[in-house]
Amino acid sequence: MADTRIADIRITPIAFYDPPLLNNAGCHQPFALRSIIEVETEDGVIGLGESYGNSMTIDGVRAVAEACRGLDVTDLNGLWARINATLTDQVDGYNTGAGRLVLRVGGAIEVAMWDAFGKATGRRVVDLLGGQVRDAVPFSAYLFYKFGQHQHESGPDVWGEVLTPEQLVDEARRMVDLHGFKALKLKAGVLEPEAEIAGLRALRDAFPDAPLRIDPNGGWTVETTLKLLPQLDGLVEYLEDPTVGLEGNARVQAATDTPLATNMYVVHPSHLPPNMAQDAFRVILSDHHYWGGLQASRELARVCEIWGLGLSMHSNSHLGISLAAMAHLAAATPNLTYDCDSHSPWQTDEVIEGGKLPFRGGKVTLPEGPGLGVTLDRSELARLHQNYLDCGFTERDDATEMKKYQPDWEFARPKF
Amino acid sequence: MADTRIADIRITPIAFYDPPLLNNAGCHQPFALRSIIEVETEDGVIGLGESYGNSMTIDGVRAVAEACRGLDVTDLNGLWARINATLTDQVDGYNTGAGRLVLRVGGAIEVAMWDAFGKATGRRVVDLLGGQVRDAVPFSAYLFYKFGQHQHESGPDVWGEVLTPEQLVDEARRMVDLHGFKALKLKAGVLEPEAEIAGLRALRDAFPDAPLRIDPNGGWTVETTLKLLPQLDGLVEYLEDPTVGLEGNARVQAATDTPLATNMYVVHPSHLPPNMAQDAFRVILSDHHYWGGLQASRELARVCEIWGLGLSMHSNSHLGISLAAMAHLAAATPNLTYDCDSHSPWQTDEVIEGGKLPFRGGKVTLPEGPGLGVTLDRSELARLHQNYLDCGFTERDDATEMKKYQPDWEFARPKF
Repeated sequence: MADTRIADIRITPIAFYDPPLLNNAGCHQPFALRSIIEVETEDGVIGLGESYGNSMTIDGVRAVAEACRGLDVTDLNGLWARINATLTDQVDGYNTGAGRLVLRVGGAIEVAMWDAFGKATGRRVVDLLGGQVRDAVPFSAYLFYKFGQHQHESGPDVWGEVLTPEQLVDEARRMVDLHGFKALKLKAGVLEPEAEIAGLRALRDAFPDAPLRIDPNGGWTVETTLKLLPQLDGLVEYLEDPTVGLEGNARVQAATDTPLATNMYVVHPSHLPPNMAQDAFRVILSDHHYWGGLQASRELARVCEIWGLGLSMHSNSHLGISLAAMAHLAAATPNLTYDCDSHSPWQTDEVIEGGKLPFRGGKVTLPEGPGLGVTLDRSELARLHQNYLDCGFTERDDATEMKKYQPDWEFARPKF
Repeated sequence: MADTRIADIRITPIAFYDPPLLNNAGCHQPFALRSIIEVETEDGVIGLGESYGNSMTIDGVRAVAEACRGLDVTDLNGLWARINATLTDQVDGYNTGAGRLVLRVGGAIEVAMWDAFGKATGRRVVDLLGGQVRDAVPFSAYLFYKFGQHQHESGPDVWGEVLTPEQLVDEARRMVDLHGFKALKLKAGVLEPEAEIAGLRALRDAFPDAPLRIDPNGGWTVETTLKLLPQLDGLVEYLEDPTVGLEGNARVQAATDTPLATNMYVVHPSHLPPNMAQDAFRVILSDHHYWGGLQASRELARVCEIWGLGLSMHSNSHLGISLAAMAHLAAATPNLTYDCDSHSPWQTDEVIEGGKLPFRGGKVTLPEGPGLGVTLDRSELARLHQNYLDCGFTERDDATEMKKYQPDWEFARPKF
């Protein structure tokens, strides 16, 4: 039997090029930060994970790595016990960090443990998670308003500026042509709400059959949202985080049959009971990076099934290890009720061998081979780590980036 | 890599000696019915399960066995899909059978799939379930009122008649002396409630430090229960199914800080949302045999953790494969908040090699070896199967058995 005890855990921060995408919090910086986690067993099998690149996550993984040495890669209970024992003294409560940190650090390592166990036993992660229920995993086109170029660049990127309904339709058409997505998701909370609704309507005209979604990231007041509902009902398959908090969104949900979705206000197990009690959100956009990994995400899916909630998947800017993990998880989740989100089409760099996993007909087919089915391209890892060292960023800060374009821009949530 | 596709699924009904234990539904028959499930892989590895011996379960497993052939033993999603496709046409709704049947049939096979995967990969089930969090699993002493002997017997069994407080204390002392249990659970709903409370008080006097529980199996009215609460508060660690249904028990729970526990009215995932909404029960007594197996039970544990409910484990009359599965599951469940229940001390027959798993200091240590760590004693299996063929029972029927002693006895729930 393979010795699958953990001999070493490594985390490598990386930075990769990211276009100037806009959201309620500001503008994406020229580099997105991420981290690559390697869990190496006593037998030399290396399991891979990918997570956030902010210093809290990187420091957190490093802080617990020593304590996790010797754990078997199947011992998820042991992982959580050791992380809780190591990290809980440092920070208190969910919102101030501890709950978030524990689940993020644990999730980062946990995915690599599944990958290592799969590689050590010749099993795919999707099989270890309970079996593949779909051949390929459907994703949506993640549409952003964006500037044409970063401040330091000499010309627009291939996507150009997207601030008008016409430019938005062009972006959607390009993305659909490239990848075959069926559903279209508009990142909103950027322009005046009526302008964004006009963008949605232009998408509806150009793509009559596409399921549409809009995500203002809490950027609208309850009153604004209630006023917009008549235009949104029947137009979108779900309305994502229109306003701030459980209570505000529950007021919106009470006024519409359009399901409200969230990746902002139900992001921790402790948020589930109040969400169910208040009927705030009827669709959870899960994300194994902050829910605590693949097992926690599978349990979340079960809760959604039992309580009759819809389920889809959230993403931040990410590379191929995350995409593979998302695809394995989604392929093992029977009640995935909406196409998943992914920023992958916006990314030009990659850290896995063979380059980016393709979308075909809007879907990702699981890569072949045991575990997650992906391996590290170590020369790209070295290059992207050098990017991290060179780029000057250690935290994501969309607001500061936005002020480079519009010095008087101020963050507000809700804003409109 | 081992070929872990299912080549064959077999189920063997068995019957084993059971003493004349009393409960709200009547009296245990001289034989308890059970079934032994074998899942054999293409490589010849045999995974074991144990479940109910009623004809619905046996026929159900046989009905789906063919459809499950070819599934990998890790493919739990495939198991549920095939069972649902095979069984759902036959029966409708939870209470009339379908939900119950699907989860019972699936759970019976699922445990054997975990065992087979463990044996094929050299892993213990507790490790595959997320890792061992306790060296040994604590159980309670399951105390019953009972007759001294079955109708056909020529003399009392070793436990004798137990109908008075003094006899109850003797039974408890014998069981604690034999097995070292700490918590004492009284199966109630049999005698007048005041007589059962007197039994509890006698147990308190004889065992001043023992956590006590009482389980009337829904045998009391709401009014009776409310009247008894002042005597129960502070005396028991939980009050199990005092009355009938979610609504009635919620009325009781609203009147006491003593947590209400259940294995009768929250026995299916669909019962969880109304239970949480009504605050009926604050402790779930899980049972992998009817919850759908080990993964479903682990998910139930997670729901209990998230919603802040207590968790323990229910049992019916069972042999060693079930006890091993319960122990592996409990050992992998961090939030097991009360000692588990087991009928095992009442059983004299066994179907696993090496005889019954011992309780030491009230705890079961996981048997060594991969999977569940137990193997079939095929000569005992043959003998107990012959018992099944000879005994004349194909369904459990405590009421008919009770009428052999008391011809005018009538089942009622609530009764008192």
